[in-house]
Order: sequence, then C-alpha cells, then structure tokens
Amino acid sequence: MDAKLLMNIIWTMLGAFLVFFMQAGFAMVETGFTRAKNSGNILMKNMMDLVIGSIFFFLIGFALMFGSDNAVIGTKGLFNINALADENGMFNELPIGVFIFFHTVFCATSATIVSGAMAERTKFISYLLYSGAISMFIYPVTGHWIWGGGFLSQLGYHDFAGSCAVHMVGGVCAIIGASILGPRRGKYRKDGKIKAIPGHNLPLGVLGVFILWFAWFGFNCGSTTAATTNLGDIAMTTNLAACASTLVTLIVTWVRYGKPDISMTCNGALAGLVAITAGADVVSDYEALIIGAVAGILVVFAIEFIDRILKVDDPVGAVGVHGVCGAFGAVMTGVFGEGCSFIVQLLGTFAVIAYVAVAAFIVFTIINKIVGLRVSEDEEIDGLDVMEHGCSAYSNFNFHNDK
Amino acid sequence: MDAKLLMNIIWTMLGAFLVFFMQAGFAMVETGFTRAKNSGNILMKNMMDLVIGSIFFFLIGFALMFGSDNAVIGTKGLFNINALADENGMFNELPIGVFIFFHTVFCATSATIVSGAMAERTKFISYLLYSGAISMFIYPVTGHWIWGGGFLSQLGYHDFAGSCAVHMVGGVCAIIGASILGPRRGKYRKDGKIKAIPGHNLPLGVLGVFILWFAWFGFNCGSTTAATTNLGDIAMTTNLAACASTLVTLIVTWVRYGKPDISMTCNGALAGLVAITAGADVVSDYEALIIGAVAGILVVFAIEFIDRILKVDDPVGAVGVHGVCGAFGAVMTGVFGEGCSFIVQLLGTFAVIAYVAVAAFIVFTIINKIVGLRVSEDEEIDGLDVMEHGCSAYSNFNFHNDK
Amino acid sequence: MDAKLLMNIIWTMLGAFLVFFMQAGFAMVETGFTRAKNSGNILMKNMMDLVIGSIFFFLIGFALMFGSDNAVIGTKGLFNINALADENGMFNELPIGVFIFFHTVFCATSATIVSGAMAERTKFISYLLYSGAISMFIYPVTGHWIWGGGFLSQLGYHDFAGSCAVHMVGGVCAIIGASILGPRRGKYRKDGKIKAIPGHNLPLGVLGVFILWFAWFGFNCGSTTAATTNLGDIAMTTNLAACASTLVTLIVTWVRYGKPDISMTCNGALAGLVAITAGADVVSDYEALIIGAVAGILVVFAIEFIDRILKVDDPVGAVGVHGVCGAFGAVMTGVFGEGCSFIVQLLGTFAVIAYVAVAAFIVFTIINKIVGLRVSEDEEIDGLDVMEHGCSAYSNFNFHNDK
Repeated sequence: MDAKLLMNIIWTMLGAFLVFFMQAGFAMVETGFTRAKNSGNILMKNMMDLVIGSIFFFLIGFALMFGSDNAVIGTKGLFNINALADENGMFNELPIGVFIFFHTVFCATSATIVSGAMAERTKFISYLLYSGAISMFIYPVTGHWIWGGGFLSQLGYHDFAGSCAVHMVGGVCAIIGASILGPRRGKYRKDGKIKAIPGHNLPLGVLGVFILWFAWFGFNCGSTTAATTNLGDIAMTTNLAACASTLVTLIVTWVRYGKPDISMTCNGALAGLVAITAGADVVSDYEALIIGAVAGILVVFAIEFIDRILKVDDPVGAVGVHGVCGAFGAVMTGVFGEGCSFIVQLLGTFAVIAYVAVAAFIVFTIINKIVGLRVSEDEEIDGLDVMEHGCSAYSNFNFHNDK
Repeated sequence: MDAKLLMNIIWTMLGAFLVFFMQAGFAMVETGFTRAKNSGNILMKNMMDLVIGSIFFFLIGFALMFGSDNAVIGTKGLFNINALADENGMFNELPIGVFIFFHTVFCATSATIVSGAMAERTKFISYLLYSGAISMFIYPVTGHWIWGGGFLSQLGYHDFAGSCAVHMVGGVCAIIGASILGPRRGKYRKDGKIKAIPGHNLPLGVLGVFILWFAWFGFNCGSTTAATTNLGDIAMTTNLAACASTLVTLIVTWVRYGKPDISMTCNGALAGLVAITAGADVVSDYEALIIGAVAGILVVFAIEFIDRILKVDDPVGAVGVHGVCGAFGAVMTGVFGEGCSFIVQLLGTFAVIAYVAVAAFIVFTIINKIVGLRVSEDEEIDGLDVMEHGCSAYSNFNFHNDK
Repeated sequence: MDAKLLMNIIWTMLGAFLVFFMQAGFAMVETGFTRAKNSGNILMKNMMDLVIGSIFFFLIGFALMFGSDNAVIGTKGLFNINALADENGMFNELPIGVFIFFHTVFCATSATIVSGAMAERTKFISYLLYSGAISMFIYPVTGHWIWGGGFLSQLGYHDFAGSCAVHMVGGVCAIIGASILGPRRGKYRKDGKIKAIPGHNLPLGVLGVFILWFAWFGFNCGSTTAATTNLGDIAMTTNLAACASTLVTLIVTWVRYGKPDISMTCNGALAGLVAITAGADVVSDYEALIIGAVAGILVVFAIEFIDRILKVDDPVGAVGVHGVCGAFGAVMTGVFGEGCSFIVQLLGTFAVIAYVAVAAFIVFTIINKIVGLRVSEDEEIDGLDVMEHGCSAYSNFNFHNDK
C-alpha cells in the first residue's frame, strides 16, 4: 500500500467532512439572521438543498463537471460516475469515491448559499426545483471550466478552493433569484424608507459563523486533496484574512453607524473567508491580511449598495458576502498570487458571472412561470412555518409575528 | 515506526472524535424536539449517560465485549482492560488505548439513544441507573457477539458500523423503557384522541440532525479502524442513503399530511443514516439509495405504528429511527451486501433483539420496583427542570408550561 | 517526501482545527450562562478576542514566545515570524506555518476565557484592548517559559497541553479583570445576601460544553504535534478525567443543594478537562479518574469561595474552572506524572501566577484609567446589546430585562 496515497485520502476525507459541516453553519446563520416565523422553513431548505444537491450531483452534475477534458462541458459518466475511474479505481490521483465525495460537499455548499438571499418568501417546492438545477448543471458547468479541465483551467485560471467556483456561483444565483422574487413585504416602503428586519436569534447566527469559520479550514486546507507541507500556510492565510476582515468591518460599522454592528461584523468574517479562498495557497500572510481588510470594507458597501441602491432584498447579505467578495477574491489572486495572471482572473471571473447569471435567470424564470417562486401574501404575513409546514419553530414561546 | 500503523491510528482517532460529537447532536435533537420545561433535564441526561457510560464501559463493559473469543461473553480484563494488550501494547491491530477509546464512544452512542424515547417523565436518578446497566452489560454482551469474536461474528454476521450493535440495541432498550414508563400525561386521551406534543426549539433540533449527519461520517468511515482506499465509497453510500431517506420521508409526509413535515423529515434523515450503517462498506451507491429510500418510508409508518397502534409514547421517534431502521439496515445488508447471508443477518438480528429486550426489561423493571422510573404527576406538570434541578432552561423568557 | 513528517502535519492540523472550534464552545457557554440582554455583546467579545488575538500573536506574540532559547523571553522574529524557520521552512520539527497555526489557536483559547468572567458589564472597547494585551505579551511570556525554551522548560516543568500555560493564564487574568471591574449591579446586596443570576439559555450552554469536550481531544491529543502510538491513551485519560469530574460535581451539588445542579455540573465537566490537560500524557487511566474526581469537588468549592468569600463576581465560573483547576492540574502532574517533579510543578505554577497577575493588573488598571473598564449603570440595566450595539439578540421575543 502506498503511504502517500493513504495520507492523501485521510486528508481529503477530513477536508470533506468539515466542508459537509458547513451545512450546519449556513443553516444556523440563515435561521439566526431571519425571523422566527420562518425559521423552520429556512432550516428545511438548508437540509433539502444538501439532499437534492447530493443526489443530482451524483447522478448528473459530477459527470458534467469532470467527465472529460472538453473545454466547455464534461460528457462522460452520466448516471454512472464510477465508470470514470481507471482500472485501479483511481480518478485525479485519488480513489474515485474520495474524489466524488469531496466534490459533492463542495457542490452542496454552493447550492445552500442561495437560500439565505431568498429567505422568508420563497415557495418550498420552487426552492427544491432550484436546488436540482444548480446541482445538476449550473454549478457543474463552471466547475468544469475551472476545475474539470475546461477552458479556464487551460488558460491558467487559479481558484484554489472556490472563491469563484463555489461562492461567487452561489452569490450570482442568489442575486438573480432574489431579484426575480422581489423584496419581502414591508421591506421597501412607498415613502422611500427602507425597513431593517433584524434576525431573531443572534446566538444561533454567531454559532453558524463559528461553524463556518471552523469548517473553512477543511474547505481551504482540504483543497490540496493531498498531504502537503504547506497546509499550515494555507490555514494561516485563511485565518488572517478572516481576522482582518472581521476587525475592519467592525470598525467600518462603528464609524458609519455609531456602534459596532453584530450581524454586519459576522458578514465581515465570512467576507474575508470567501475572499481568501481563491488564493489561500499562493499569497503571503501579509497579503492575506490586505485581502481580508479590503474585503471587510467591500462587504459593507456591497451589502448597502444591493440593499439601498439596487433594492434587492437579501435578508442575510449572501450576495455581498459570497458574490461580491467571491469575485473580489478571484481577481485579487491575479494581483498577489505567484504565477497568476490578473487578466485571466478578471476575464475568467466575468465569464463565470455571465454564464451563471444567464443560467440562473432562465431557471428561476421557468420556475416562476410554472409553479411560482413566491408564497402568497397571507403566507408571508403569517409565516412560512405555519403555512407551508403546519408548525411553529418555537411552539412553547410567543413571538412577534412581523417585526 | 510503521507508517501504516500510524495512519490507522490517525484515522481511528479522527473517527472516534466525530463519534464523540454525536453526543452534542443527540442532546440538541432531544432537547429541540421536546418541551421547554424539560429541556435542562434532557440535556443533563445526555451528558450523564456519556459520563456513566464511559466509566462503566472502561471498568467492566469493554472486558465483557472484547475479553476473549468465547462465543457468549468476554471473560478477561475486568477492571483492568489494559492487561488485554499484547507485549507491544497492541490489541486488534491497534494500540489498545486507541481501540478502547474508539469503542467507548460507540457505547456512549448506544446509551444516549434511550433518553429521547423516555424524555419528559423519567426520574433523573433512575435514568442514571439505566445508563450504568446498558454500558456495563446490555450493550457489551451483544457487542461481543457481533464485534468481539462471539457467535454472530463466527457465523459471519456483518454489521459494519453498528446498525444493529449500536442503534438497534439502543432502540430496543428505548421501546422497553418507554413501554414500562407509560406515556406522557395527556398524550393519549380517554376519548381515543392522540395529542401531538410538538418540540419547543426546531433550530436546535435541526442543528442536532446536522451534527449527527456530520459525525456519522466518523461513525461509518471510522469503522474501518484503518486508513483504506474505500473510505470515499463508505462516505458516499452513507451520504446517499441519508439523502434518499430524507427526500422520501419529506414526500411521504407531504402526501399523507398535506404539508412537508419538519420533525418527521429530520427523523427521515436519521433513518437513512441508521439503515446504511450495517452495510456501508459492502453495498453500491445505487443500493444505498434504495436502502435509504425504503428507510425513509419505513420510518414514517414505524413511528405512526408505535404511536397510534402500540400507544407507546416516544417523544422523539427514537424507536422508529434507531430500533426499526437499525434492524432493517442489518437485514438489508444480507440482501445487498457482497458475501453476506440473508439468513444469518435475519436470525442474528432477532437474537440481538431477544437478548436486549429481555435484559432491558429486567433492568427497567428492577429500577421501577426499587426507585421508580417515573416522576410524580406534579413534577411532570410543572416540568422536570424546576422540580428535579431547581432551574429554568430559559430563565429570561416566559414559555407555555404544557402545550 | 518523509511520510512521518506528513503524518505529523496531518495530526497537528487536525488538532489545531479542533482547538479553533473551542471558540464556538466558549461563545455558547458564555452566552447560555449569562442573560439574554447581553448575549449579542458576549458573542462579539468571543469573536473579537479570536480576531485580535490571531493578529497580535502573529505580529508580536509568537516571536516573544518562540523567538529564541532565552530564559525569560523570545527576542527574534518580531513582525516577521516566518524568518524563524530554517532553510527548509521547518521550526520545531514542523513546517513553520503548521507550528504557528497550532499555537495561534492555543493563544486564542487563553484569551477567550476572560470574557466569561467579565461578562455583562465590561465596555466593548476596553475588552478589545485587553485582547490585544494578552495575545501580545501576557500569554506569550509565560508561554515562552513553559513551551518556548524558557526557564521553566529548562527546569523540566511539565505542562503537556496547557493546564497552566493556557487555562490558568486565562483564569488568572479573569480574576484580576473581574476584581477590578467589580460585581454586576444587584449581585451583592447591602443586606449581605448574594443574588444568583441564572443563565438565559441552558441548551446553548450545554451545547457549548459538548463542543468544548469534543474540541478538547484536539487540544490534548493534538499536543503531541506528531502521530504517535499513545494518542488513544491521551484521549482516554482526557475523557475519563472529565467523566469523573462531571459525576462527582453532580453528586456534590446534589448533596449540598438538594438537587443536581445543571450549570455547576457543566463547570464540573470543564474542570476535569482543564485539570487533566497538564498531565494527560503521563498519568494512567486510574490516576486520571482521581484527578478528575478531585477537580469535580474542587471546582464547586472554588466557585463558591470566589463568589461568597472573595465576592468576585464571575458570571460563568471561569476563574474556578480554568484558574483553580488549571493550577491544580499542573501541580497534580508533579504528583502522578512519570518523571515530573512536584516541587518544580508547584514553584513553576506559582511563578506563572505571579507574572500573569501582575501583568494583568497593570493592563486592566491602565485600561480602566484611560478608557474605563465598565459600562455605565444605565447601559448595564438596559443591557449591553441595546446600548453598545443597538440591537436585541432575540428581536422577535420579549424577555425579562433584569432577572
């Protein structure tokens, strides 16, 4: 038995386990930062995009992503991905099961980002349909371009652990979905005022951030898919970028709003993590601090811009965090990353945005036409938990229904 | 130093850590899906079965489980398990400390399943006594049969990670305990109506499910107790079974109740995980989808049957999930598993049920006679937190005491 | 590539990831065991000491801790720690990035202990300043003495994973900080009565304990910073000590207060974990049970002594758990530990207490003089969330503001 191969397996599996755990982190963040009356529903959406994502990625998505070196899309292995392995059961230098599992949890991460931006007003059935679409062909196609031997990887596009391939893809789907869906009732008033709708459970939201930060070490360090000597360096750039962005966001909100804002600072932490993900292996510790610090400023203005200027209602700030900072991280890798091309990073990122925006637009428009994306006004007022699931998330407590 | 041995140690330790974390998952599931007034109490029971289980398994249980190749029960190593090691400190191809630690967390998992089924009305002291009994001799005896060289392992009974040895054993204890204990006050009304008693904190309950799903990768993949090339395959069958069961349960509840049910779907996720555990290493991905899908149907009808026909009050559905789907998974391994015998799986599973049912009946009956299993009616009405622990789990909030 | 080195890297990284996750555990414990009106604030403090700690330890602290074999303090590598590596990028037998990351998360653990003891009345800005100080020079100096080649390590002082270096250091800072800060309003009444102020969310608090216990396996087993054959033994002593202390604390509270106390039992679990940390690698399983059992008694009386006799208000019992049981564990390693000297352990522990107490006193006094440690009485009454952050942690719920 080859010791190096077994070590690579151990490391990749550990990374995959941690990335899986991101599902818990997203579920807590999205629940904590939205309202009590919709919390059971958002939890279910988080669970179901994992479920549907895993199944459709297994049946179809993985084959489109990795089933050939075609520049545009994979063509082999549909409904039979294990056939992609060589005679020793290997694929991309790992046993194929290890490789598939690792990429399954990445796909599920991309899928779950969208639920936060579309929270509190999306029909459950429609959300399930979207989950299938992103896992089946939106995520796998650009994934193929970047990681599956497609044209971006051939051009030398560097997206180490997925600032673009995972987070930005989720973020672009999120803004398209939230735009088509429209804002939550009462969010943008006729007199032009914008109502802040605070989350109902900060401890759960912050727990989610800690879980995501923890799991991000699996996301980034695991993306070597091998036991290597630079794992500590990757963990350091990851952590320092997150620390810098958190601190900077805290200061920015303190200056802008007069008080250090908790939920925005949480988004600051995630912003740094998203931004460093593309280049965690090719930037220095000090460059990571810079990337994080800029992401910590960027996320505040991005979220404000989306909320106030674009008037797209994104309850948890997912577009600002994953979309904007994902793109930013991919481009910054072209600035700081050893051996990376700024032009390739810039154009590649735009290519991904263009494809995902169009594909997501088509998907959400079709779902909207056929089954409708949005719950009725009554359902939105009374809450999705009662109306879509016949339950209350906090049955022993009274809570305000519409604050 | 032997590199393969060290890799096996790393992998087994990682698996054990994750299995330990199941304690957090069970605690959250059981708390979230029961009432606020009893939540401190159920949390303590979850902590104490880990505590008592670890100590008694160390002193006695491990020796009964692994202390010889006797067909029925281990006989060596009582109060001195480290003596079971060979001159190099090895036991079953691992340093004995690694092996003991790994099995300690498995024992604790089996023990903690019962608390959910007996929640909201079991005396604290009686629960502590039960914890000692299951860890000391109920779990270790059948564990010896299956994993410790006993007669089932000699017959070729295959229970890879413990659908039967861990989950079904816990589930059988659970139904015996819940039956002797009787239903919660108000659950079964005189007019024949059955009152649904919803959980008080769905976000915690769903968090618990995500933690368990995450930890299950340690449970199943770790059960190789070695670094092997099929770890990814095991993770894939585990995940796909859970995804299939979750999706199927969601659909079944949608059809039967008119709305997709959240807490039942959570049980669906756990059902698939329990069912795949016995054969995760010997079934294909598509077989895992089938096992999961059937478990996703089975768990709904099992929970309904136990609740409505047997009228055994199991607040969190532990018997349906762990007992029924554990048995189902063990038997299905005989259908799909390479080199497994259906007859051996079927008869072996029944043998385990028989022993555990009798042993648990004796234990709970003795506890019931001597100290009483059940709290007083006043305690049940006012809540176990106030009456047994002198506290409220949510001291800054008002909550409904009996909904 | 050297297989043993790669295995050591994998193991150390896994340990570091788990230690990082302690941040989530501390955040949940401290939030759950304090009041709802201050929960957003304590969550932010937990996040920010990680953030500030990581940055300052990277810039300055690590160099003071490891930047030479000087007996008192490191002198090389300030603002440039990667320069400490040899020509192969190695430091202390690991790639320097791995080593730095591992020690970063340890430093962050020590820093975060203090927030609990100073909860519910410390100004946010002042807490940030303290975080910088502990990570920049309080923790690194004694860390240098014990782990960085300083005089205690030269004397043979044994503190395997940091009962003293991490926990006691945090605990000593905690009591100094809490003393200077003064008790929460209403805690000690003029008639001599002491008001118990219960935590607002026991499920989160207990979840935090489970997360810490889980993460502690990374803390202790990871402290080998190498793949070794005794990892299972370390996990066993860690777990058994925690089980013994939890059980003993439960019994002590049952006898003393008439009912088994939930929050004290949680502190009992942590007490055993803290106490075993210094000697987890050099004591036997039975000695671990003894250390845990004594810690389980000690923590109750220590917390009562601090609360009732010293009248230092420590909302979560951090001083008793980390300070007292940390010192106890360090000294007990001199009693039971193979090759450890009782006198060295005793005197070394006192030396650390003396330095940390003086340094923390200076730091907190300066902060107190310049910006003030304590919020205004109005802020304390209305809650730090509203006043310092302009939010409520539970915006959809009504809660009692001052119970």
